Amino acid sequence: MDLEKLFKPKSIAVVGISKKNPLSPGRIVLLKNEFEMNTKVYGIYPNGGEIEGIQLYKRLDKLPEIPDLLVVAVGPDDTLEYIQDCVNLKIPASVIIGGGFAEIGGKGKKRQEQLEKIAFENDIAVLGPNCLGVYAPPIVDTIFLPTERITRPPKGSVALISQSGGFLVDQFFVKFNERNIGVSTAVSIGNRAVVDEVMLLEYFSQVDSETTNIAFYLEGFKEGKARDFLKVAKESEDTVIVYFGGKTREGKVATQSHTASLAGNYKIIYEALRQHYIIQPHSERELLTCLKVYDVLAKKRNPFGKNVITFGNVAIVSVSGGHAVLASDMLKKYGLEAVQFSRQEKRDLQNLMNPVAAGIASFNNPIDLTGSVLDTDIENIIRYLSDVDRIECIILLLLPYPPNISFQIGRRVANIIVSKNKPLVCFVPYVSKYSMIIESLELANVPVFHSIKETVQAVSALKQRTRVDNLKLKNMFWK
Amino acid sequence: MDLEKLFKPKSIAVVGISKKNPLSPGRIVLLKNEFEMNTKVYGIYPNGGEIEGIQLYKRLDKLPEIPDLLVVAVGPDDTLEYIQDCVNLKIPASVIIGGGFAEIGGKGKKRQEQLEKIAFENDIAVLGPNCLGVYAPPIVDTIFLPTERITRPPKGSVALISQSGGFLVDQFFVKFNERNIGVSTAVSIGNRAVVDEVMLLEYFSQVDSETTNIAFYLEGFKEGKARDFLKVAKESEDTVIVYFGGKTREGKVATQSHTASLAGNYKIIYEALRQHYIIQPHSERELLTCLKVYDVLAKKRNPFGKNVITFGNVAIVSVSGGHAVLASDMLKKYGLEAVQFSRQEKRDLQNLMNPVAAGIASFNNPIDLTGSVLDTDIENIIRYLSDVDRIECIILLLLPYPPNISFQIGRRVANIIVSKNKPLVCFVPYVSKYSMIIESLELANVPVFHSIKETVQAVSALKQRTRVDNLKLKNMFWK
Repeated sequence: MDLEKLFKPKSIAVVGISKKNPLSPGRIVLLKNEFEMNTKVYGIYPNGGEIEGIQLYKRLDKLPEIPDLLVVAVGPDDTLEYIQDCVNLKIPASVIIGGGFAEIGGKGKKRQEQLEKIAFENDIAVLGPNCLGVYAPPIVDTIFLPTERITRPPKGSVALISQSGGFLVDQFFVKFNERNIGVSTAVSIGNRAVVDEVMLLEYFSQVDSETTNIAFYLEGFKEGKARDFLKVAKESEDTVIVYFGGKTREGKVATQSHTASLAGNYKIIYEALRQHYIIQPHSERELLTCLKVYDVLAKKRNPFGKNVITFGNVAIVSVSGGHAVLASDMLKKYGLEAVQFSRQEKRDLQNLMNPVAAGIASFNNPIDLTGSVLDTDIENIIRYLSDVDRIECIILLLLPYPPNISFQIGRRVANIIVSKNKPLVCFVPYVSKYSMIIESLELANVPVFHSIKETVQAVSALKQRTRVDNLKLKNMFWK
Repeated sequence: MDLEKLFKPKSIAVVGISKKNPLSPGRIVLLKNEFEMNTKVYGIYPNGGEIEGIQLYKRLDKLPEIPDLLVVAVGPDDTLEYIQDCVNLKIPASVIIGGGFAEIGGKGKKRQEQLEKIAFENDIAVLGPNCLGVYAPPIVDTIFLPTERITRPPKGSVALISQSGGFLVDQFFVKFNERNIGVSTAVSIGNRAVVDEVMLLEYFSQVDSETTNIAFYLEGFKEGKARDFLKVAKESEDTVIVYFGGKTREGKVATQSHTASLAGNYKIIYEALRQHYIIQPHSERELLTCLKVYDVLAKKRNPFGKNVITFGNVAIVSVSGGHAVLASDMLKKYGLEAVQFSRQEKRDLQNLMNPVAAGIASFNNPIDLTGSVLDTDIENIIRYLSDVDRIECIILLLLPYPPNISFQIGRRVANIIVSKNKPLVCFVPYVSKYSMIIESLELANVPVFHSIKETVQAVSALKQRTRVDNLKLKNMFWK
């Protein structure tokens, strides 16, 4: 099944347009693709006419060309007729937005079986039904939410595939943007009657070259597909991330009404996924942290190299003792350890600082530079630690409150990191007045987080990724 | 010891002003209080003169009046002399910003003993040394961070007392503002040589009437003070919240260089605090969530009543099935349970919705309204659930992405909640374009959170507070 037509169609047709209701899904999709995307889009309307200057065609067979993709935003019975049109006209792909299929049980289930039969027999890549479809910039956008409701994230390496449209939108179009996570494609799979998680994993691993981080939100695997998914994931050169909803008894009950997925025993699933090199964040926030770090790793001017944190040995540098304590409290939970400094190293560190701060700072690990710190102290300490080989990653807790830290500090730290090959993750509070510091660091591919927890999680994410990359390399070698 | 002079001084004197360095702590404190606060402030400078039009006095005994509070921002030896001046001139309170005392060991420790002796013998309320001091608007602000570095939170019920100045600033002046948590006072206790956590707890419980939520960040109790702290907390009518740093072995090592606190065995401490009605958040984020909810409860037009969630029975209403699943996954961990709906209730709920959404929505608990939801559906469902007695709290996961939800929805939900007496906590994504929705809800005292986790934590915080309030009531009754 050729999924490329879903994500890179040369032309699109939309059915289910309302002339009266400007918020009807079909109409939103037509206007979005016409005015915001780069592919030819045709609207179908029984009486023809036009909307905002776009000519509408009366029937699919009246179009000047056979479109690659048909977006269907009508009721369930009409949907089946349109899929039959795809067969007749040889339209290779379709996104079915509407519901009324398996998710309502009874006759909906029968309808979905019919849909599956037609699609598989005629090799039509059907996404949905009961989904938001695809956002693959700059080509296609079938997400029928008004543009002013969402924020579009920057381009990058992450594809997000979700069983929940709401989850997809909330992450992809809100939280990714807030965190500056670079993305390639968003896919809402709905009932996954035809195109499922395995096909999408194959497509993004083997066909799409922009995507190198493939993330899933699932409430369970499609029946009979778990084994295939694990196999493809293990062989993928990309990083595969799965975040599960419905892990608890209470959550499982909720999935029954949502996607009717049987999540099964989560502990067994967790171990199986781990053995197949799949990274599994434990929370929504950890998912976002992983994706942010992996997107930075995917960038060409990656400051870190690829396999970076084998043991989890870190140095913590803070301008606030309390923050240093709280970060230390989290290390063990995330499989990390604070490197021990020798007496000589402690003396060296102390000698690098201004005399006032040197007298009150503490040079164990965590290093507490105190509020008397100057920009040059931070630079000197980071430069020194970058050359200590047994430190795999520096955690810099940079609170720009002390009066003598300048707003140039982001660029000054970035300047050191660019010349060294040492991973550094940074905490900076999320306040608009500090955006100058945050942007300077991120432009140099130093990932910045806005809580202590996310900053520590980021190092853990690097360690998990190192483990997976090493196992994949080994795997390739023994083949 | 009269702590009121620390927080409500009628006049303040500052020593340690630099004419050359505009960022010197003493100078920042002088200018802040002169131009941003409402109390008379005097600057001391050996040669007199002026700074920005403020007359400087050569010596403390040359001031036109005896100040209530002396802010000391000089080296450690000079500090002791100034405290002696307090004795001679009968200045009743002092904030000592500078370090060089117990935290550096050796002779610093001796200095601190001397300081303690003078202060206790002469009944001088000394805060610090090695601290940021006090922010008690609109009267006094000794936090020597430049105004442009911080954001001031709104007025409200929360006092935050912290052993770490960095933690205090990051919460109080950054995160509180972001979350709209209303505050009364911030206190950085530093080495707590004289004024300690017990005295402060007494002051805020028994003297200060603005504060009804007293929160602490501690890395351990002051030696010999744990028992007193527990006793005062148990008898306090206010809500006492303690967040501990240094709970793990790694964190404890870090506290050794930071505050030299011995946190002890955290499990034993946890249980002791619990038995003394102290609320203990497990993370920085949970601390913030608790404070936000408790601050709302403290407001006069509290929509909730006081003792609200005894059993933890909730109803979850979502416009995204995925969010409903993830919220359900968290219930058990936070001691909550989804109420079961009867068949009749499910039918009632279904009949309240527009026909399109009614056909695809699910009316178990969680209730998934789907993306086809209208404003009126949300209103009808919330109104109905408000009247179901066995539901103690409604969790509304309000993603304003679906095209037919208007931006009026915040006000529309608030309007129902104001007339009912049902607790409701709400999730709305944190995007500036949704601020209209968020503000409408918060103006009606409906607390809004920006992640699923915080929203569920908020209900758990209400339940913990109910438990504590009930125990305190019982306690009063049996006395």
